[in-house]
Amino acid sequence: MSGIAETPEPPYFAVIFSSVRTEGDRGYGAMADRMLELAAQQEGFLGIESAREEVGITVSYWASEEAIKNWKQNAEHLEAQRLGHNVWYADFRVRVARVERAYGI
Amino acid sequence: MSGIAETPEPPYFAVIFSSVRTEGDRGYGAMADRMLELAAQQEGFLGIESAREEVGITVSYWASEEAIKNWKQNAEHLEAQRLGHNVWYADFRVRVARVERAYGI
Repeated sequence: MSGIAETPEPPYFAVIFSSVRTEGDRGYGAMADRMLELAAQQEGFLGIESAREEVGITVSYWASEEAIKNWKQNAEHLEAQRLGHNVWYADFRVRVARVERAYGI
Repeated sequence: MSGIAETPEPPYFAVIFSSVRTEGDRGYGAMADRMLELAAQQEGFLGIESAREEVGITVSYWASEEAIKNWKQNAEHLEAQRLGHNVWYADFRVRVARVERAYGI
């Protein structure tokens, strides 16, 4: 999870999760690790990239909209979303996007 | 540029730029600042978010594919892209995506 995701040829989908944290860990680090582990086990998961400075950005890549919907409704993930909303994030935004083209080095 | 971008209702477009830097600054910081300033002046620019740890992620938001194309072809930006490819980035990937929906706190 420390590099650039190896994704297939587009089209595929991206969930861009941008957030500003509250103060203190309060279980965030352990849950973030667990969510990475769990996301990677989901059907249709293609990869993930993450970095945090003043704002945190996590982009996860998915094969379909249905895969994104299933992940959003995963029971453990629902609990993480609840804690994220109530405890860990001062602000966040989720954007669901369809990747149309990609290129690199 | 330190927070979450204030974007309008979808649809709009996102350019997800993921990168791994080479060692040393070699003019990167100044150019990155200049590119942020210049991007914000472009027609159709909607906002930008950026963070770097092991991987750097910059997501810029745009009103149209045409705005993205114009920015990619901006003369100063072309020179920055050339230096990015040859000097500053060990690896990078650019993904152009259409944001279909968004929600937040």
